[in-house]
Amino acid sequence: MKPTFKIAVIQIRTELEKAVTMEKAEHMVREAAQNGAKVVVLPEMFNCPYAKGYFRRYADTADSGSVLEMSRWAKENGIILVGGSIPELDGEQLYNTCFVFNEQGEVIARHRKMHLFDVDIEGGVRFMESHNFAAGNEITVFDTGLGRMGVLICFDMRFPELVRTMAKRGAELIFCPAQFNMTTGPKHWELTIRARAMDNEIYYVGASAARYEGFSYEAWGHSTVAGPFGMIEATCDEKEQILYCDIDLNEVDSVRRQLPTFLKLREDMYTVPQ
Amino acid sequence: MKPTFKIAVIQIRTELEKAVTMEKAEHMVREAAQNGAKVVVLPEMFNCPYAKGYFRRYADTADSGSVLEMSRWAKENGIILVGGSIPELDGEQLYNTCFVFNEQGEVIARHRKMHLFDVDIEGGVRFMESHNFAAGNEITVFDTGLGRMGVLICFDMRFPELVRTMAKRGAELIFCPAQFNMTTGPKHWELTIRARAMDNEIYYVGASAARYEGFSYEAWGHSTVAGPFGMIEATCDEKEQILYCDIDLNEVDSVRRQLPTFLKLREDMYTVPQ
Repeated sequence: MKPTFKIAVIQIRTELEKAVTMEKAEHMVREAAQNGAKVVVLPEMFNCPYAKGYFRRYADTADSGSVLEMSRWAKENGIILVGGSIPELDGEQLYNTCFVFNEQGEVIARHRKMHLFDVDIEGGVRFMESHNFAAGNEITVFDTGLGRMGVLICFDMRFPELVRTMAKRGAELIFCPAQFNMTTGPKHWELTIRARAMDNEIYYVGASAARYEGFSYEAWGHSTVAGPFGMIEATCDEKEQILYCDIDLNEVDSVRRQLPTFLKLREDMYTVPQ
Repeated sequence: MKPTFKIAVIQIRTELEKAVTMEKAEHMVREAAQNGAKVVVLPEMFNCPYAKGYFRRYADTADSGSVLEMSRWAKENGIILVGGSIPELDGEQLYNTCFVFNEQGEVIARHRKMHLFDVDIEGGVRFMESHNFAAGNEITVFDTGLGRMGVLICFDMRFPELVRTMAKRGAELIFCPAQFNMTTGPKHWELTIRARAMDNEIYYVGASAARYEGFSYEAWGHSTVAGPFGMIEATCDEKEQILYCDIDLNEVDSVRRQLPTFLKLREDMYTVPQ
């Protein structure tokens, strides 16, 4: 038997003051752990308003500031913490980075967003993330005491080959800290979460920030967990809250047996990412 | 400028008598053409009840019976006809096959279902298509006067690498004759159609048979067309009817430019089907 456990998505509203957000995040993570969550996930850029004037000013290095804080939260609460993302400074270069911590507060994975959000939709959102960030070059799958998991960030999820690669490498629970917006959120957020879960017959967790009404970039919210059959296991609206979901990794094997798609790919006929 | 044109999905109810279905199909195809459709698509096994006692009895070879009939329909109406699928007999072997005809009635493509529907869902559908059919071994993309198109059949659509391969080979309008059922239809039909369209930024047409209430295999119906932004362009309920949709292939290029996913795959980081 594989493990069953509770996860929590911290759908936090990012405040303009970093210290205020960090204090709120610490409280919400503690509350989630007290309610039994064994894995807690924060959203993309959870402590930095998603606008170009903030990224460099709110950045931390891999061994400073909010990275050390998150390590402490994981250790003090005895949880696996998928640290959403922060602007990470490495030399002069900024990355949109997720650090993952184990129950001892050790960094067990680091994902730098691989696909930067450069879009210009007629009558909708325009954003050029590559003007501020460099792209990461690593696919991130990691082992925990609860199973093999993976993490990617927001726009990364639009590339099915990335998620397929993670699933083929054994990730059965994939976290995606994100901030879809008011153009792409209603159209594609739930669709993409469900499709990635269905196609790979895994659990897929979309962890959004709460909406900050009136801020220049309004997040869609609606954090959502889809299960291996592609159905919604937990979801919510756009407001600040903690979303809980029970995970049963035995379901991955069960669904893959009942509806053999992941296990019946015709690798003789087309290339399958590995 | 690329072409804009109307397509029609013949959501026919398959009758127990083949001759009755064929006569009805001919009338529906003619009606669609008279209403301006330039491409007409029939559903999977459109002239053969989807149950094992019928497949071999209702089969045709590539140069007999319903293949010749469909050729005539295409020529007489001056349309491209995506001939759903029929049980095709080749020697002793049965295939679930789609023949595609141009406006002169010539066969321009043949797709044999590549992924057979062998599923056993607890409390839901059970079917073992491989007990009756052999699987095809070719990916099917074809050129027409209206652009490059592709065809796959039903369960094939659950394999995103197949659709990706077709899109990478230039198909901008993909047809999927199908018969999802009462278990997988409500859960996965619309989701998969929209996801394939969104991920490849193409038009994707799911062409279902109408529901035959009380027959051993009840089709979900709900033929649906999704556009390159992953949104539904046309859909319907489960009853027998013709579904029309306007196609503008310029939208493929426009969406790929506005939301660069298909054109920004990181082929340096993961394998992309070609």
